[in-house]
Amino acid sequence: MFKINENYNRLTDSYLFSTIAHKVDAYLNNNPDADLIRLGIGDVTLPLAKSVVEAMTNAVCQMGERSSFRGYGPEQGYDFLRKAISDHDYAARGVDISPDEIFISDGAKSDIANILDIIGLDNSVALTDPVYPVYLDSNIMAGRTTDLHDKSRPKIVKLPCMACNGFVPQLPDKPVDIIYLCYPNNPTGTTLTREQMKAWVNYACKNGALIIYDSAYEAYITEDDIPHSIYEIEHAKRVAIEIRSFSKTAGFTGVRCGYTVVPNELAGLSNDGKSIKLNRLWNRRQTTKFNGASYISQCGAFATYSSRGREEIQQSIRYYMSNARKLREALRDRGFEVAGGINAPYIWLRAPEGMSSWQMFELLLQQCQIVVTPGIGFGSEGDGYIRLTAFNTHENTCRAIERLNSLII
Amino acid sequence: MFKINENYNRLTDSYLFSTIAHKVDAYLNNNPDADLIRLGIGDVTLPLAKSVVEAMTNAVCQMGERSSFRGYGPEQGYDFLRKAISDHDYAARGVDISPDEIFISDGAKSDIANILDIIGLDNSVALTDPVYPVYLDSNIMAGRTTDLHDKSRPKIVKLPCMACNGFVPQLPDKPVDIIYLCYPNNPTGTTLTREQMKAWVNYACKNGALIIYDSAYEAYITEDDIPHSIYEIEHAKRVAIEIRSFSKTAGFTGVRCGYTVVPNELAGLSNDGKSIKLNRLWNRRQTTKFNGASYISQCGAFATYSSRGREEIQQSIRYYMSNARKLREALRDRGFEVAGGINAPYIWLRAPEGMSSWQMFELLLQQCQIVVTPGIGFGSEGDGYIRLTAFNTHENTCRAIERLNSLII
Repeated sequence: MFKINENYNRLTDSYLFSTIAHKVDAYLNNNPDADLIRLGIGDVTLPLAKSVVEAMTNAVCQMGERSSFRGYGPEQGYDFLRKAISDHDYAARGVDISPDEIFISDGAKSDIANILDIIGLDNSVALTDPVYPVYLDSNIMAGRTTDLHDKSRPKIVKLPCMACNGFVPQLPDKPVDIIYLCYPNNPTGTTLTREQMKAWVNYACKNGALIIYDSAYEAYITEDDIPHSIYEIEHAKRVAIEIRSFSKTAGFTGVRCGYTVVPNELAGLSNDGKSIKLNRLWNRRQTTKFNGASYISQCGAFATYSSRGREEIQQSIRYYMSNARKLREALRDRGFEVAGGINAPYIWLRAPEGMSSWQMFELLLQQCQIVVTPGIGFGSEGDGYIRLTAFNTHENTCRAIERLNSLII
Repeated sequence: MFKINENYNRLTDSYLFSTIAHKVDAYLNNNPDADLIRLGIGDVTLPLAKSVVEAMTNAVCQMGERSSFRGYGPEQGYDFLRKAISDHDYAARGVDISPDEIFISDGAKSDIANILDIIGLDNSVALTDPVYPVYLDSNIMAGRTTDLHDKSRPKIVKLPCMACNGFVPQLPDKPVDIIYLCYPNNPTGTTLTREQMKAWVNYACKNGALIIYDSAYEAYITEDDIPHSIYEIEHAKRVAIEIRSFSKTAGFTGVRCGYTVVPNELAGLSNDGKSIKLNRLWNRRQTTKFNGASYISQCGAFATYSSRGREEIQQSIRYYMSNARKLREALRDRGFEVAGGINAPYIWLRAPEGMSSWQMFELLLQQCQIVVTPGIGFGSEGDGYIRLTAFNTHENTCRAIERLNSLII
């Protein structure tokens, strides 16, 4: 009989969100009139910008007329969008990324997982802990392991991100081949300074490593000295792939559009010692296994680069970040240790000494009727933390703050 | 230095479409006034149905209002669409496929390539020749080989489809684990009868094989006795995954929406001898490596199941199939051996004895100013054939027929 991909048996099923749902349901059963406030939401809630709606409505109309109908688009994305990204997300920041280094997709999650297709299985991989679970699971699916005793498989190395290192991972003490970095970070909401980013780029240059840089939350950066792209660092084009998304930038979580930058000078090694350009490999991957993002979504994404579009999406981000700031300040004033919330819509809150993520979750649910995400869901170093998000309304965020102020621990 | 996926070095770069473009450019340089007719087009040309345009316009508007905004959808697709597919594409034909066996995606090409993620690498794979190149390339990328002498890799077995077997592959003489079948077929335009399909299902049941059944052209079936789904055959749910698309059915090549059926009773073997359900594995794959199809595209797809939507998309299919019929009949009357064109928008034409695909391509370009696709682009058994498509206008198709009638060989 045919065989399944055995690596799937090594995955740990995540029951995080179903466990949260069960606990909330149980609470509501006992307290049917409870007025819950959800601060666990990892999804945008504001509607699409007017300019995006207009652009997508136009695109739909075009598709309904023979003269303007569009069938298959380029698998790499339309030139109009690749050019806009090159101009606005890179050239405007002094970074030279050409349109042919930019690949449009149906979203960052797909790219983050699919990028492993072009990488040899024998590479070792370094991930932070806590971490966005897709990095870990997609590597396990491909055949890598976190098991120190399994000699037959390439390793996944964990880089702890804790309060004591400011949630910035130390450089690995043994060489690793692939490094995932996500800044502004999900779940901790922290960032890398230019110097910290330089250290990683230097490490990658020195060790021949590849950095997969996930900057899905780039648009939430408010501080001037935080780099928006890894390519702001010298030599990064030799060592880094950058993955971005319109999901959090412009509320596209249901629209689906993202992109991946694979610089022309970035190369990996072939078994025969040849240097092979990743741009060509990713192009081959995408033309073979993907048929382009929706024309309508691409037109919507393009509209976010118009001056009106930019202003509109900035408004939404300011709305969320005002929630983040209020929440962060209230929690800090209340005596909690908090990270994030300045350049990211996430706040990473340390539970009082000795309390686990789930205990803190329960406490907030029972006492404040607030739902959060337990940090343990992002890795063992996340235990003792919870993640709060800025994606609820101003009103609910303010009401949540009032309740948090009267929390008794 | 980090390593690339070595299997990419084993891919043969396809220069088919770039070679066609070069030849056409050269011809146009020498004949600047030539009035070319393109019958090589593998893409739809008619605009989207009005009901689809309306549904997608509404969806875009919903996304622009806070009360109706949709963020992340279910990775498996929205229930409204899964239910409509279950009802219209299956229950209406007496086939019981439940919504939870249906996974909505951004298109059949992604699913066809990605489905290999859940299959063990050690399986042998059988493909027809000629074949849609994605089946072959995605297997080579995963590490399988067509090289008979390479003992280190699982094999890709080719099943020749020739005039002498009516372009229907013989059952393999050695057991294979995975079988790709595409009917109505691209590029030959042929179909499987119920008996032929039964033989494949029986083979798979007997040998513990998995059939990956690509029915992207199902909507073009005109003859009553041709099955529309492999699940019309008894026991097929034990052995087959079916992949479908709205691309050719409803002109969605630029909209991006398709689906894959993974029946609950379909299972593969784990190394420890356990039977593992593929539905669970594909669900794990999609929830980890994909974030759902665009809400707007899903609303568009849903509209194709309304009574008005169904009538509108049928109109477009009748338009294309009227082209196919005319083309087929004219070519047959002209003395050519032709396949397809009855239940598919493709006609597979055999060049006169001794003439290669590229020679026939040149002859039609030079004498008739008609551009076609050389059959060799789909595999070695495709040599001596060309593929013509029904996706041009009525007017151009009729003009092409006139030119073909005066062709001198």
